[in-house]
Amino acid sequence: MSIYDQSLQFHAAQRGKLSVRSKSPISNYEELSLAYTPGVAAPCREIARDPDLIYKYTMKGNAIAVITDGSAVLGLGNIGAKASLPVMEGKCVLFQQFAGIDAFPLCIESKDMDDFVETVKKIVAPFGGVNLEDIGAPHCFEIERRLKEALDIPVFHDDQHGTAIVVLGALINAFKVTGRAFGNVKIVISGAGAAGTAIAKLLIHYGAKNVIVCDSKGAIAESRDDLAPYKKDLLAVSNPDNVSGSLAEALKGADVFIGVSAPGIVTQEMVKSMGEDPIVFALANPTPEIMPDEASAAGAVIIGTGRSDFPNQINNVLAFPGLFRGVLDARIRNISEKMYTTAAEALAAIVEKPTKDMIIPHIFDETVVPAIASAVKSCA
Amino acid sequence: MSIYDQSLQFHAAQRGKLSVRSKSPISNYEELSLAYTPGVAAPCREIARDPDLIYKYTMKGNAIAVITDGSAVLGLGNIGAKASLPVMEGKCVLFQQFAGIDAFPLCIESKDMDDFVETVKKIVAPFGGVNLEDIGAPHCFEIERRLKEALDIPVFHDDQHGTAIVVLGALINAFKVTGRAFGNVKIVISGAGAAGTAIAKLLIHYGAKNVIVCDSKGAIAESRDDLAPYKKDLLAVSNPDNVSGSLAEALKGADVFIGVSAPGIVTQEMVKSMGEDPIVFALANPTPEIMPDEASAAGAVIIGTGRSDFPNQINNVLAFPGLFRGVLDARIRNISEKMYTTAAEALAAIVEKPTKDMIIPHIFDETVVPAIASAVKSCA
Repeated sequence: MSIYDQSLQFHAAQRGKLSVRSKSPISNYEELSLAYTPGVAAPCREIARDPDLIYKYTMKGNAIAVITDGSAVLGLGNIGAKASLPVMEGKCVLFQQFAGIDAFPLCIESKDMDDFVETVKKIVAPFGGVNLEDIGAPHCFEIERRLKEALDIPVFHDDQHGTAIVVLGALINAFKVTGRAFGNVKIVISGAGAAGTAIAKLLIHYGAKNVIVCDSKGAIAESRDDLAPYKKDLLAVSNPDNVSGSLAEALKGADVFIGVSAPGIVTQEMVKSMGEDPIVFALANPTPEIMPDEASAAGAVIIGTGRSDFPNQINNVLAFPGLFRGVLDARIRNISEKMYTTAAEALAAIVEKPTKDMIIPHIFDETVVPAIASAVKSCA
Repeated sequence: MSIYDQSLQFHAAQRGKLSVRSKSPISNYEELSLAYTPGVAAPCREIARDPDLIYKYTMKGNAIAVITDGSAVLGLGNIGAKASLPVMEGKCVLFQQFAGIDAFPLCIESKDMDDFVETVKKIVAPFGGVNLEDIGAPHCFEIERRLKEALDIPVFHDDQHGTAIVVLGALINAFKVTGRAFGNVKIVISGAGAAGTAIAKLLIHYGAKNVIVCDSKGAIAESRDDLAPYKKDLLAVSNPDNVSGSLAEALKGADVFIGVSAPGIVTQEMVKSMGEDPIVFALANPTPEIMPDEASAAGAVIIGTGRSDFPNQINNVLAFPGLFRGVLDARIRNISEKMYTTAAEALAAIVEKPTKDMIIPHIFDETVVPAIASAVKSCA
């Protein structure tokens, strides 16, 4: 039976994956009188008097809203809020399993950006943070910006920054193995959506001088007259040599390829055209831009994918649980770029002696969440 | 230490009462691939193809949103969405403990009715039903009406109908004990908010011919020139003898007093002025309209309160868990008045031989939820 059929059975047998539980039982009048009437009036009165006490007396301080509009779900695209629910439940499960966080899915049926933002503002009272999930580019950028400004709790778009943190962590170790430095490498990114944009910006922020981002029409360059505003913003900080043309053109002589785009779009010839000892992160899921054996045969010395059946699994679950654990524990209101880079360094540091087949910890490595949480808290 | 101080300690020690859990562990790659990528794409695709399959593959079919605007929280009034959270978490705990339902609090920061309704419409995708909670009158009536019309899932305002179901159930047995019938009794209700209005309407629907509702200014009668539209609607079906004046006036010769109003407003003289063998349900919480020992000394033969430390605890928890259990199990879209009365009859029937001190089951009686669920399903 295929993994897809197995997954359908798994989901149907349990009727979804999430359950909401009481932290302690209510099985007699005494327990009821503490958790509900009449006792519950006391924490209500306290919070009415001092709103900050909501962190002391309620679930808020350990609760995250996983919020989507269903516009960019996995590789499935704009399937809508309802059809996104299995993914959002899954994300909440990961928050709980990896970091003990109470996460709940809010799948918002609105495709208008203003309306979406206004809706989120009204419904986050029970939550200590917002994890935006599977919201398409470019509206994800503006939604994140507005919510970060409007809300008094931290906001994080995992498809952007979670991916960027893990890629940066993997790249730090890949550079150790291959003796490179961020200041003098050429990095080509395929994909100019949420992930590609955030990866480019974080690598540049971290010191990369020569980053070229390609979308489906090729390199984002001055010669393009079809660039959306956010791609123009990206161009302003990337592609210093103004390389134009196809992804194949851009890749010539590159040190690093990072794919967050589409299956099979990178050929062995393209890998061969890269510089010496190239690094290939082919992260399209489940089918990478180029399969690891092909990339290896074409000369790639370090290869990462999003998959668990190859070495170097570059997966967001290495970042978001620990990041939110730290953010919640320290009641950090604004998640900063410094936190992203510090988290990436902490992730890289977990692998004591990186090798070409071990540049990033395994996702079930239990030291990851505390290391990232601690790194994030150190920036607060 | 007072119950209030104990409750503060209880809430602070646990940091609230709710936790969101995974139905099964995710501790290896195989489990991850079923619950999350890549397997999770399968239920997403299925739901995108046929939205109804959301009930098969997600938590929706067993999930209830407990939704408030914080405008009428317990006896605390309009304390707002944030300060309402301890009550909403408590309600969700009760849903889980009594009926195994996954309930989650949505405390909406909006005091505008149109805005509140529009917000709710956009956020209920993950839920199989809506329990409106602690929303003040009169806007609760219009909110409920609009949401029932707009949503494709059941909507229930517990402060109205939960209370009405339990009061009707208790009254059915109180009438058995005292040999009365709904068609020939005089019932006076103190309180014309959500609960009082719903109780009056349900009792009338069930056959009560002479129901008088009093608000803080006295009986709702034709002589009043200060009646809000919903009170005029109520008058159209109640007070057939057009009794006017104070609660004390209305109570003269009454068979039943039902208080959902304010502590201590009923005197022994008022009880003495009622008809023979009067029934007194003094449900204001935690301090009733008249204390049971005083009511008894004044001649009341059956006395109910909202409290667990006196006989006949008339508490919503006897209704809403079983009602939603039945509604979810049978995927009932519209909760009807017939379901309310059938649930009330089922609740009454649990007490095989009602006595003056036992007209309603104890709230921890485990036969209550299945009996009510089954009653509700029988109406579907």
